[in-house]
Amino acid sequence: MKLISIARAKRLRSTPYTSRIEKQGLTSYTTYNHMLLPAGFEGTLEETYYHLKEHVQVWDVAAERQVEISGEDAAELVQLMTCRDLSKSKDGRCYYCPIIDDNAGLINDPIVLRINKDKWWLSIADSDVILFAKGLAIGKNYRVNITEPNVDIMAVQGPKSFALMEKVFGKEITDLKFFGFDYFEFRGGKHLIARSGWSKQGGYEIYVEDTKSGLELYDYLFEIGKEFNVKPGCPHLIERIESALLSYGNDFDLNDNPLECGFDKYVNLDSDIEFLGKQKLIEIQNDGISKKLMGVKIDLDQISLSQAIEVSIDSKRVGELRSAVYSPTFNHVIAIGMIDKPHFEVGTKIDIIIDNVTHTGTLCNIPFV
Amino acid sequence: MKLISIARAKRLRSTPYTSRIEKQGLTSYTTYNHMLLPAGFEGTLEETYYHLKEHVQVWDVAAERQVEISGEDAAELVQLMTCRDLSKSKDGRCYYCPIIDDNAGLINDPIVLRINKDKWWLSIADSDVILFAKGLAIGKNYRVNITEPNVDIMAVQGPKSFALMEKVFGKEITDLKFFGFDYFEFRGGKHLIARSGWSKQGGYEIYVEDTKSGLELYDYLFEIGKEFNVKPGCPHLIERIESALLSYGNDFDLNDNPLECGFDKYVNLDSDIEFLGKQKLIEIQNDGISKKLMGVKIDLDQISLSQAIEVSIDSKRVGELRSAVYSPTFNHVIAIGMIDKPHFEVGTKIDIIIDNVTHTGTLCNIPFV
Repeated sequence: MKLISIARAKRLRSTPYTSRIEKQGLTSYTTYNHMLLPAGFEGTLEETYYHLKEHVQVWDVAAERQVEISGEDAAELVQLMTCRDLSKSKDGRCYYCPIIDDNAGLINDPIVLRINKDKWWLSIADSDVILFAKGLAIGKNYRVNITEPNVDIMAVQGPKSFALMEKVFGKEITDLKFFGFDYFEFRGGKHLIARSGWSKQGGYEIYVEDTKSGLELYDYLFEIGKEFNVKPGCPHLIERIESALLSYGNDFDLNDNPLECGFDKYVNLDSDIEFLGKQKLIEIQNDGISKKLMGVKIDLDQISLSQAIEVSIDSKRVGELRSAVYSPTFNHVIAIGMIDKPHFEVGTKIDIIIDNVTHTGTLCNIPFV
Repeated sequence: MKLISIARAKRLRSTPYTSRIEKQGLTSYTTYNHMLLPAGFEGTLEETYYHLKEHVQVWDVAAERQVEISGEDAAELVQLMTCRDLSKSKDGRCYYCPIIDDNAGLINDPIVLRINKDKWWLSIADSDVILFAKGLAIGKNYRVNITEPNVDIMAVQGPKSFALMEKVFGKEITDLKFFGFDYFEFRGGKHLIARSGWSKQGGYEIYVEDTKSGLELYDYLFEIGKEFNVKPGCPHLIERIESALLSYGNDFDLNDNPLECGFDKYVNLDSDIEFLGKQKLIEIQNDGISKKLMGVKIDLDQISLSQAIEVSIDSKRVGELRSAVYSPTFNHVIAIGMIDKPHFEVGTKIDIIIDNVTHTGTLCNIPFV
């Protein structure tokens, strides 16, 4: 595919780390929440993949913006937006929460941070959740304040992230449980740090509010991280598909519901909480889903997907591939596809036509094994 | 500035025209409403500028997505979202409408098309207006249907657009008044065509719903447009700043209100219509605005702006530049800046520091003259 440059403008916002990553071998950007998100660094895709799986990377993921909802009706509004039961949620914990509309269509899938009962952060995927929250709050006369605070996440990911972070913050940081968060100090700045991140290689996300301290921390991580072979990085296509970390806008969107995407354990229909789309989800559960997100194994050693690719059986469309990459671990292409009923059975063979050549794919569960 | 490529994925949606423009000399993309928007073609910025001002260009502006609001409460919801009085609006007309929240912060500035009293299209700038509309509709129990229809706009812009379009659609198309629209046929497809577009060089926007016919029309425009020197193009930085076509996300956003942006004639506070932020706007009008969007002339022969650039007087910050470009017509850099009270007077001199060198700018009205 021909390389086309990205045009710069204030509208595609830079992050505090932008000038640094551009000196560190950045090769491509994507955009996310109206912001620049690094998408590639020097080295082949496989080289950066193995580096992430073996060492540690620091990621500029400031584009994961926060929607802050505070005030006396904050908890009620957050619960209204998600089908996950948050009634037993605790301060200092992260919750993966599908956000849906009244028709159960997916609007986003943020990590929700409960800072306290009256203050929540939604760490969002790529859609303007702030506008949905504002619309609901205005329409329902909620007493809330909804803002996008000045928070620019840097992630530290990879198996050596624990040793690197311990060197900066001490033993306490390794006591953080998965999806727990707490506040840690660095050179006068206080940072909310969660044990989380958009890879399955382990690590942390540092929610930088104090930009000056955050930039010093960024530089310090590279300074003391040499022994761990630290490098700049970004969410990685191979790693995230292998790990079945779904991507809003790629793998699912407003036309899909959480049950179709396998989010069943975040769909709490049996509780008496109220949320948008609940009645619709009950109907869908009773009727059964009409399409399902599946893994697809394809006997190919490369693929380039920039829009959905139709899949068929006997020349009849039965769904589409939404993300795909060659996996050096599995030695073939792995893809995530939305497959129509009744074809979404593990083992089903499907046809994929690329450049007029038909290839065979086999449906499987995700994560890939 | 180093050229960095754009990473492709389904999330940054292609348009029906993508494969065509990539064969027609496309050099850069931006993203807009989660979609690819061409940002540059072969030739210098000045060459494409003069071409647009002298001939005719066909633009892939499918990224100007439509939010369709239909149903018996549609008119009420559309009016609630904008400070412009739509009570006397007519079918078949376009209206430029600032959309604001309850605090008068700008959410978008679409062209609103009144198809009929119960069906409206909001042809939006870069933010998820659909989510704001859905939130409001759910919160207020409006009987409306809110969707993003399959509409991919192609614009025909430039002084020769009228002759080119007449050659396709006949004399009737030249009878369309500015911001009027009607339906026109091409090879079995029916297209809503408006006399509008994001340049001041004249032209049309074709709201393509019938993709097959639209693609045939795209090709036909190039086939028969040779005598008018037709070329592919895109919204043009020089032309749009010279013409003071403001850009959401660049020149203004949620932290600005319509009175600060000079949208006074679209702020109808004297009528008895109800809309969000009305009380707040009345207060702002009574108190006076605290910052204002101004033109800035700078004695420079080039500039590259990818984020806001601070402007100061006697080393004290008094505002920021938000868009800027060298104008070959005015022979200096022209910029759009948000300037704090009490400094927003025409003729005020301000300092702009770029790469440690201080330059002088002079505030002026926009459009530039």
